[in-house]
Amino acid sequence: MSTVDRTERVPKQDRSRATRQRLLEAAVACLAEHGWAGSTVLVVAERAGVSRGAAQHHFPTREDLFTAAVEYVAEERSRALRALFPQGAGAGGRRAVVAALVDLYTGPLFRAALHLWVAAGDEAQLRPRVTELEARVGRETHRIAVELLGADESRPGVRETVQGLLDMARGLGLANLLTDDRARRERVVAQWARLLDEALAG
Amino acid sequence: MSTVDRTERVPKQDRSRATRQRLLEAAVACLAEHGWAGSTVLVVAERAGVSRGAAQHHFPTREDLFTAAVEYVAEERSRALRALFPQGAGAGGRRAVVAALVDLYTGPLFRAALHLWVAAGDEAQLRPRVTELEARVGRETHRIAVELLGADESRPGVRETVQGLLDMARGLGLANLLTDDRARRERVVAQWARLLDEALAG
Repeated sequence: MSTVDRTERVPKQDRSRATRQRLLEAAVACLAEHGWAGSTVLVVAERAGVSRGAAQHHFPTREDLFTAAVEYVAEERSRALRALFPQGAGAGGRRAVVAALVDLYTGPLFRAALHLWVAAGDEAQLRPRVTELEARVGRETHRIAVELLGADESRPGVRETVQGLLDMARGLGLANLLTDDRARRERVVAQWARLLDEALAG
Repeated sequence: MSTVDRTERVPKQDRSRATRQRLLEAAVACLAEHGWAGSTVLVVAERAGVSRGAAQHHFPTREDLFTAAVEYVAEERSRALRALFPQGAGAGGRRAVVAALVDLYTGPLFRAALHLWVAAGDEAQLRPRVTELEARVGRETHRIAVELLGADESRPGVRETVQGLLDMARGLGLANLLTDDRARRERVVAQWARLLDEALAG
């Protein structure tokens, strides 16, 4: 490959990556605002300022686009979460870790994922894709939670304690869907962070 | 009122009540199976074997029908839950109570309520109705949980402990939406019932 080929190729790859990223972010925002029924490839392409053809080049089907979008944003959020606690939190900062884990379920990403989740219950084409996606994202979130909480999963009950905490976080996300549940949520998080501290201390 | 009037009136009221009940049950089943988009008054009337006119006599709007349906089934389930533990459970049977509370969120009622909930996020007409309904059902479920768990809410943290448990139950319901999550759920319930026992024993 000549030098010229290489220099031309890199910006093109960059452009392609930037387009892809704009599409993914637009798809999550669209899903969070308009739900599955109102989210088509065309609507997302327009929102991202990309032609329909370009959108379909990146994501041949609607299912491809929206599952990739939820996965992309979930990965971004996981990265941000790890970055918040570079040394892990250990016993001292468990309340902050619990609050940050719960925050994963109260923003637009959770709203988008919930729309996808509920739609997948009714749509045969979407269901296996979302099931597989949720399992993957769920495992990664569990791994982060164990790490940041400094939980020793070799001890009996610790794995289920952390799982239940993430189920609670999901339930708190649901409770925040229609109303601003922040005040109640903070009290629940404070209390369960205390209970968790005792449970993980053994 | 003559005796004849009275005997004619009672069966008519009974018939009307039976029709109403059939509509409510059909509405929840329809919502659980087809989601909000696929649930109209006409579809429910057909499923219940009731004319569209009769359905609209009972429930003038689609919002009336579906919010009444979710409330009716939630009340039925609350009654059934109380009946399961006529003396409350106290410390001995807390695991059974936690399992029964979690069961509230894993059946067709939760699926139906979730569809309504997610739709309410996007529909201005539905949103205040569902917000108000969820608050009422939530308060009632909390009351039952406190009672059956023998929780003393005058002690600090106990209220939030029970709230977090119900948030966890909701999250477990969500995890069960696309896959049969029973095996994992049972382990989480067993562990969180233990944590709860310690927390409530103080």
